[in-house]
Amino acid sequence: MNPVTVNVSLAGQRGYPVQIGPGLLGELGGFVAGLGSVSRAAVISDSTVAELYGAAAVESLRSAGLAADLLAFPAGEANKTLARFAGLFDGLFALDPAVDRSSVIVALGGGVAGDMAGFVAATALRGLRWVQAPTTVLADVDASVGGKTAVDHPAGKNLVGAFHQPRGVLIDTETLRSLPPRQVRNGLAECVKHAVIRDAELLDWLKRFAAPLAQTPHAPQMTELLARNVAIKAAVVESDERESGVRQHLNFGHTIGHAIEAAAGYDQLLHGEAVSLGMVAAMHLAAGRGLIGSEDLRRVERLLSGLDLPVRRAGLDFDALWRIMLHDKKNRAGRVRMVLPVRLGAVEVFDDATRGELAAAVSRLAGERSDTDPDA
Amino acid sequence: MNPVTVNVSLAGQRGYPVQIGPGLLGELGGFVAGLGSVSRAAVISDSTVAELYGAAAVESLRSAGLAADLLAFPAGEANKTLARFAGLFDGLFALDPAVDRSSVIVALGGGVAGDMAGFVAATALRGLRWVQAPTTVLADVDASVGGKTAVDHPAGKNLVGAFHQPRGVLIDTETLRSLPPRQVRNGLAECVKHAVIRDAELLDWLKRFAAPLAQTPHAPQMTELLARNVAIKAAVVESDERESGVRQHLNFGHTIGHAIEAAAGYDQLLHGEAVSLGMVAAMHLAAGRGLIGSEDLRRVERLLSGLDLPVRRAGLDFDALWRIMLHDKKNRAGRVRMVLPVRLGAVEVFDDATRGELAAAVSRLAGERSDTDPDA
Repeated sequence: MNPVTVNVSLAGQRGYPVQIGPGLLGELGGFVAGLGSVSRAAVISDSTVAELYGAAAVESLRSAGLAADLLAFPAGEANKTLARFAGLFDGLFALDPAVDRSSVIVALGGGVAGDMAGFVAATALRGLRWVQAPTTVLADVDASVGGKTAVDHPAGKNLVGAFHQPRGVLIDTETLRSLPPRQVRNGLAECVKHAVIRDAELLDWLKRFAAPLAQTPHAPQMTELLARNVAIKAAVVESDERESGVRQHLNFGHTIGHAIEAAAGYDQLLHGEAVSLGMVAAMHLAAGRGLIGSEDLRRVERLLSGLDLPVRRAGLDFDALWRIMLHDKKNRAGRVRMVLPVRLGAVEVFDDATRGELAAAVSRLAGERSDTDPDA
Repeated sequence: MNPVTVNVSLAGQRGYPVQIGPGLLGELGGFVAGLGSVSRAAVISDSTVAELYGAAAVESLRSAGLAADLLAFPAGEANKTLARFAGLFDGLFALDPAVDRSSVIVALGGGVAGDMAGFVAATALRGLRWVQAPTTVLADVDASVGGKTAVDHPAGKNLVGAFHQPRGVLIDTETLRSLPPRQVRNGLAECVKHAVIRDAELLDWLKRFAAPLAQTPHAPQMTELLARNVAIKAAVVESDERESGVRQHLNFGHTIGHAIEAAAGYDQLLHGEAVSLGMVAAMHLAAGRGLIGSEDLRRVERLLSGLDLPVRRAGLDFDALWRIMLHDKKNRAGRVRMVLPVRLGAVEVFDDATRGELAAAVSRLAGERSDTDPDA
């Protein structure tokens, strides 16, 4: 199967291609060398992915005639810190031949590796070119578009970072073979989100094809799925690169989802699982306002359930969630900003979700499933 | 005396004003509030300047109705580190009310404070607005234009940073009262550099007015001098924001100067003192090529001497300087890139300075002064 290319075009900047298909890691060297005037490359990865694919990435770069080395940091969100960021520079500036302005950083791995490596690229010598080689479905459909890079701070996630667009993204679907099914579903949750905010027809596609992908994520359908989702995210980001307007649509499911994720502790729920719950709650809120019908809600809920993503969760402490949501800078005077569907495939931003509405929506997560609940 | 404003215009970005005059620190609050939608400000300064002017800056901001706090780090280039950078975020994210995307960072101090605070602004929440309030002549004429921010790494100076343009620069010439004369001269060396690369008439002005400014840096002539120099640097940067072309002209005196500074250790020579020596050596090299006449060289040398800036230095180890210059990424195959005057007020970039030429030029720094040396 030939790779598919989605082009990301950004105002006032050069666009870049997102290439998707099996075996693309072997094309990494040619792609990087083709950027022109490249002296050397440095691959930055987490320890898990470095062991699986680090040698292949370096080998591809060297085969293209580039000096290339691998820098790894310990895997896990707990290591997305300023201290590890500083440690990567110790490795980067010790390389021989030395890094200079013509060097290229390659981010190899999931979201954490992409955020870390991208932030290194954004700041090494005040900005080096970089290429992303994501290896998780979540990173493929989410982190590969938008140019967001960051590390966490004890005060919150992604508080220190930069916008820095890559020169290209190579998504090798073969690397998904090593991804556990739960991690595949973690990314599929964001695909459902994209469908709800922009593409109702994608809901049908997901219903037909997505469930088996958790077991065979390297199947040809994955290339099509990733391409559709990258295209949706690219269209949103292109229209609003700095997040002031419609880019907020990408936060659908994330207001309540983030709160659930934070309250549970980040080692309890995967991001996509929390977003799945957040989308269900947001749709309850939207249905309560009459923006969508209960059949719309049930349709999305059945899809999520069919993908083994959570749509119910017992024991949620609404007061704790409320405090987290109010702490968000976008929420003022006791009202919470929510992205809500106005029909399947279209959302709008509302600044006025009340405590009562949110409490009611979250309480639905503890109840019976809507697909058996005529009152939903 | 009314403040003078020089506008910096950058392609594809909003420009910003550099205001220069006595008492402008008192206008800081009004200026920051006038940026619009500002929730709070955080003043970042080094410990020395924080003690002198931190309270005045915070008071001005609060008088304008803004939440404002002062964050200080220990003074000195040795503290321009990733570790201190991380420490500033600990303070920043502990502020109450909290920092959000509408917050503004104020950089108060010399070059180190500007570089640190600017890099915090570039990366906090992926980029906050910032305003510079420089308090040294060197920062006034150099760091206030260009948007360069950075911290050092053990492998070299300014290796980790970002380009991040400020929303404005307020240069309060009254803050120069506390600046030691040697530090004033440190900045005047960069003024001489600007004159040689772009404005021969400024050499006359400096000869007439500059020497007394080392003792009375708050005198009205300083406002004129700073405005002329900011305008020169702005014109260069505007034409070449990312340093690929004519912005290299600002490196006049810096190739050999940086090498002398690094070889001496950064606590021995001030930056401007090393640049003074570097300019003299570069002009010897230019004279050796017949690009300028010996009278041009003597004229600049007399000016520097009159400002008590060094034009001779005994005991330089050329082999050590050569190794440092070759290590620079711009220098390949044993040839060194040099910015050389082709007449007073105009320079060009040459990629072919040889070891022999450089050795001869550096050897002149150990000799008699050119103004008593007819063979110069």
